[in-house]
Amino acid sequence: MKTYKIAIAGFGGVGRATAGLLLSRRERYRQVYDADARLVAVCGSRSGLADANGLEEEQLSNLEDGLSGVAFIEESGADILIEAGPSNFRSGEPGLAYLRAALSAGRDTIVISKGALVHSGRQLRELARASGAMLKLSGAAAAALPTIDLVEHSLKGCEVLKIEGILNATTNYLLDAMTTRGIGFEAALREAQEGGFAEADPRNDTEGWDTACKLLILANFGLGANLTMDDLIVEGIQSITRERVEAWRNEGFVPKLVGSLTNVNGAFRAQVGIKTYPLADPFANIRGKDKAIRITTDAMGETIAIGSGKEPLATAAAALKDLEHILTKRGA
Amino acid sequence: MKTYKIAIAGFGGVGRATAGLLLSRRERYRQVYDADARLVAVCGSRSGLADANGLEEEQLSNLEDGLSGVAFIEESGADILIEAGPSNFRSGEPGLAYLRAALSAGRDTIVISKGALVHSGRQLRELARASGAMLKLSGAAAAALPTIDLVEHSLKGCEVLKIEGILNATTNYLLDAMTTRGIGFEAALREAQEGGFAEADPRNDTEGWDTACKLLILANFGLGANLTMDDLIVEGIQSITRERVEAWRNEGFVPKLVGSLTNVNGAFRAQVGIKTYPLADPFANIRGKDKAIRITTDAMGETIAIGSGKEPLATAAAALKDLEHILTKRGA
Repeated sequence: MKTYKIAIAGFGGVGRATAGLLLSRRERYRQVYDADARLVAVCGSRSGLADANGLEEEQLSNLEDGLSGVAFIEESGADILIEAGPSNFRSGEPGLAYLRAALSAGRDTIVISKGALVHSGRQLRELARASGAMLKLSGAAAAALPTIDLVEHSLKGCEVLKIEGILNATTNYLLDAMTTRGIGFEAALREAQEGGFAEADPRNDTEGWDTACKLLILANFGLGANLTMDDLIVEGIQSITRERVEAWRNEGFVPKLVGSLTNVNGAFRAQVGIKTYPLADPFANIRGKDKAIRITTDAMGETIAIGSGKEPLATAAAALKDLEHILTKRGA
Repeated sequence: MKTYKIAIAGFGGVGRATAGLLLSRRERYRQVYDADARLVAVCGSRSGLADANGLEEEQLSNLEDGLSGVAFIEESGADILIEAGPSNFRSGEPGLAYLRAALSAGRDTIVISKGALVHSGRQLRELARASGAMLKLSGAAAAALPTIDLVEHSLKGCEVLKIEGILNATTNYLLDAMTTRGIGFEAALREAQEGGFAEADPRNDTEGWDTACKLLILANFGLGANLTMDDLIVEGIQSITRERVEAWRNEGFVPKLVGSLTNVNGAFRAQVGIKTYPLADPFANIRGKDKAIRITTDAMGETIAIGSGKEPLATAAAALKDLEHILTKRGA
């Protein structure tokens, strides 16, 4: 049986859910992959815990101050890094430092936060290629919704002509509330903030940046594009009025915040903004915090996927899907 | 560069589309896989053509009588068999003989027709395991709609709790016509037969057997079940009246012929029959000849996929997706 030592950097809701799910699946890893998968280190921004023999669930509620940072993770002896920290696409940090160190050292890496992938995706890909490390990122593209999976696996061989995605839960929740209940943007936002579905500063979601990040990751890592934020036209939902939504409704259309990629002679044009869909379109019926993607290819026509897993468990499961692909490859 | 010799047994619409798409992608195979993929033989039930140096598109309209059958394909020197013949789940033939010969000899095999997989799936899996051949069947499960792909790749690690699928284009077209235009079953069927979307003897579709075949393949090859047709409860749409559809419509429900698998303590219960969905459910909006699947798992919640590729191209593309997975594995 081969031992895999796993570290998780970033220990908020998603990091904790990933740790819990990983520990609960250890028997599966043993049976299916003949793998002893040990969680050897976890850390948040200021505290952490490490044990080369493997941490148990009950230890994870008592992290020790000061055990954090790149050196702490590197010293844990981990073979595989799961990066689940906060996401800042303008700096790439704090994830970028962890990812650079792990990939440079040839460690397989599972990325959940988008910041570093958007900020320095090309560099990270090159580090991985140079060292032979695997760089996986299912959880970063749109949580449990299959996106890059579809392009790379299910539609393999086809040319992607166009992609449209409802990729951000907060804006979909807000537009859905505005459409189905006739309330305005501010009222919907307050409600979402009170329910914990929108941040105190919601602009990363409402102005379209989160969608743009996911779109850029999908384009660069799934379609071999090389886009930066400057290549994207990004519009949000903050200026959509109740009256505008009502007018669309009266015409039988539902507004969605959509990220789209259009293949123009082999290069992808990327855009984030409102699109409206007739009621019979599957996109019109993407409710609440669900997500969806529509991929149009030359030979398979339109393929739509809709995901509605509960967070943070669904994102944790996406990251651990990556882990199984790593175990498959490394165990072969 | 490695040479792969490919034979296609079964040369109706899907077989021909597969041959055409394969030939058009030869440059891709060279570039992406360093593979020289040659079509070395094709045959229908009574005629065929073979050339160890590779057939070209223009030769495929002049097949020679008498060049057909298992011995003909075996003598072509093919490394990979694509089986695209007519589907008969009661006998498994004519595909079964081709598949047994290829898998016994260790040849990688891509199956498009369902008959042999339903009739002798277990035996074929065992032949493949014994010889080390790959047995791929994306095109048999539901054409371009990703089904087994989702379970095996995108949802990897999760426990499947339930699957529902709209897997048969003909019945979906008929129910859609009955629902949206208020016509009866007989009128919808005549129309579909005139348009070429339903067979002269439509019972394989309308009585639910085609859906049952796909469901059984999905259960046995995607979920490790070991079901036979006797384990399935199969009901069709032939007795659904216009009045019944109208009553559903007045209540806001849309009827669909659905194959479902339910995980009961680790074993799957399988059933084909009518289910009704409210208008806001994505399944209510699966139009015409589109297909859809909804997979519920423990950690990722509901994942829905909808496919609307044009036939026979979409099925050909599904089979050639399998080919790329074979090229990836064999080229490694």
